[in-house]
Amino acid sequence: MKKEVLLTPGPSQVPHRVAAAGAAPIMHHRTAEFGEIFARAVAGMKKVYGTEGDVFIIASSGSGAMEMAVVNALSPGDRVVVGNTGKFGERFAQLCRVYGVEVVELVREWGKIVTPEEMDEVLTKEKDIKAVFITYSETSTGIMHPLAELGEVIDRHGALFIVDAVSGLGGLEMKMDEWKVDMVAAGSQKALMLPPGLSFLGVRGEKAWKAVEESKIPKYYYDLKKYRKSMQKSGDTPFTIPVTLVISLDESLKMMFEEGLESIYERHKKMAAATRAGVKALGLKLFSEHLSYVETVLEVPEGMDGKKLSSLITNKYGCRVAGGQDAYKGKIVRIAHMGYVTHHDVLLAISALEMSLKELGHDFELGTGVRAAEEVFLS
Amino acid sequence: MKKEVLLTPGPSQVPHRVAAAGAAPIMHHRTAEFGEIFARAVAGMKKVYGTEGDVFIIASSGSGAMEMAVVNALSPGDRVVVGNTGKFGERFAQLCRVYGVEVVELVREWGKIVTPEEMDEVLTKEKDIKAVFITYSETSTGIMHPLAELGEVIDRHGALFIVDAVSGLGGLEMKMDEWKVDMVAAGSQKALMLPPGLSFLGVRGEKAWKAVEESKIPKYYYDLKKYRKSMQKSGDTPFTIPVTLVISLDESLKMMFEEGLESIYERHKKMAAATRAGVKALGLKLFSEHLSYVETVLEVPEGMDGKKLSSLITNKYGCRVAGGQDAYKGKIVRIAHMGYVTHHDVLLAISALEMSLKELGHDFELGTGVRAAEEVFLS
Repeated sequence: MKKEVLLTPGPSQVPHRVAAAGAAPIMHHRTAEFGEIFARAVAGMKKVYGTEGDVFIIASSGSGAMEMAVVNALSPGDRVVVGNTGKFGERFAQLCRVYGVEVVELVREWGKIVTPEEMDEVLTKEKDIKAVFITYSETSTGIMHPLAELGEVIDRHGALFIVDAVSGLGGLEMKMDEWKVDMVAAGSQKALMLPPGLSFLGVRGEKAWKAVEESKIPKYYYDLKKYRKSMQKSGDTPFTIPVTLVISLDESLKMMFEEGLESIYERHKKMAAATRAGVKALGLKLFSEHLSYVETVLEVPEGMDGKKLSSLITNKYGCRVAGGQDAYKGKIVRIAHMGYVTHHDVLLAISALEMSLKELGHDFELGTGVRAAEEVFLS
Repeated sequence: MKKEVLLTPGPSQVPHRVAAAGAAPIMHHRTAEFGEIFARAVAGMKKVYGTEGDVFIIASSGSGAMEMAVVNALSPGDRVVVGNTGKFGERFAQLCRVYGVEVVELVREWGKIVTPEEMDEVLTKEKDIKAVFITYSETSTGIMHPLAELGEVIDRHGALFIVDAVSGLGGLEMKMDEWKVDMVAAGSQKALMLPPGLSFLGVRGEKAWKAVEESKIPKYYYDLKKYRKSMQKSGDTPFTIPVTLVISLDESLKMMFEEGLESIYERHKKMAAATRAGVKALGLKLFSEHLSYVETVLEVPEGMDGKKLSSLITNKYGCRVAGGQDAYKGKIVRIAHMGYVTHHDVLLAISALEMSLKELGHDFELGTGVRAAEEVFLS
């Protein structure tokens, strides 16, 4: 018999309530009954986004919502700044270039961020920057950007602020309006506790809609104006929405509001603190000083086979974690604690890490990591 | 207490087995376990498509797969022929125009089709036609195009043949290779017995891939080459796929192969014949002589309130049907029998139609429609 705890940075665990809700008999998407569910889901997402603006629900992966932001906010020839701090920052740069947008790319070593001071410098130097693209929490490296501070700088320079919050939204605080973020892309399979299949695009207000009106990139499926028109006219979507996933979303939002958004963010901070205390107590190093609260990334000890380490944790000890990507294959281990995660998951992950490290000859006393995590939970 | 039978042309009924499969604990999309399921689903879809070529699974609605065909097969300035025989044919024309493609639009009165003879004429007259777009079964009007005959004509003229089979695939025979169809778009929520959220694009071979190589329309999320590369490299998708819907797809394909594709097509023909016998026995007219086997569209009797008729059938008698769209609002009723449908559904639909017609003063003997349907089932 085997039990597996899913601790990858997406897909993440789906509560039974949420999965069961999605298995209810299918309903038609243009009925009053579904309309109510859909409206409630949209209203709930606005709270999660921290916006009085719009949140659109899309049938696509998170990358679809990122594309939707690019093709609706920009025109060929526009100049933008992209923070390339990992695989998903890089994706924004690729997306922009595909559509003829000129990219000032701020490439950072993995584990680093783009600071508000650096952003201020760049925007002071570069002319006619239409938009700035930033990854809120970058799953490939675990880092998190300070959106509030960045938003202040970007707004001062007059550019649009467009954020990929695919892996953070629901687990990390998001105050789109207060932080002056104009568009935010998100996905269902991360901290929102849902299976993959839905994505989201938040649009804050005037400044974003003006850009949408001016945009000259051709689009159809991702045409924001079609989505806005459908919402205004009939409260639905221009293309058939994944009905069962929206029903699941309604249930996961219900769970989130039962717990309270502030409590959820605190829980994620606690999970992060406990995981990191465990990791450090075992003599391992964290990959970055900028780690977000939804994912802990640790460095594989010098000389140890990192792929073997990930494989033992995942396959032998039943906690599915992710290894490094690209140049960091075998060099880091990524333990996500996003969404439906409690101290149970963290304790099992740290224990799996301990047993795997022991097998690979790492020198430490068994139980040290778990004890450190428990101390955080007791504090 | 209320029971509802869902007989709209998408979403359609989802078998309990299929819904339950999708509610299993979530799994990571890049594991051997899911890889096996995904590979089996793709192999199954190739059988349903009748192709030795490729079938790609996409996270989007069916319109997304239609867009994927357009943006990968064409370049701005290309000339194409589009059969506009209803709302979805019209969508292909809109999609092409958005991307700078010149459209020779064959607009037909709703209920009519584009015949192979007409296609031959158009392709003889028009020069440099790169592709022809046809809707296999058009849900807005119920019609079905003769793909085999059209394929022969289009191939002879050298154009690409691109088909929207969103509402037909799984219920209507599809022999992509034999019929020389180069690309076929499909969706999950129709005859494939799944919730909405997945779409499919079949790509037959050389001719289509050559067009893909030449295409100059910018794209990212819908870039077919990314999908092909992912399949070849690791047997998966470039963007996170809706894991639970693919698990459901695997289950629905299992059901389909248990029944046998030929038996499924025969069943759909039987459902269509019984529904139509019932409708005609009640003195009503069919909307078109070209109706497909997945949907029966009937004309509302002269002088009767069609919206009232649809509403009674749906809300009072518990069989959810669709009314007409655009200019046909209140003039037709659409009863879908696609996917997870047996004689139970047809009998309840005809009975609901009878009771609703009686309430609205239509002159006939109660039971006449059901008897006619039963006669077909007994034959």
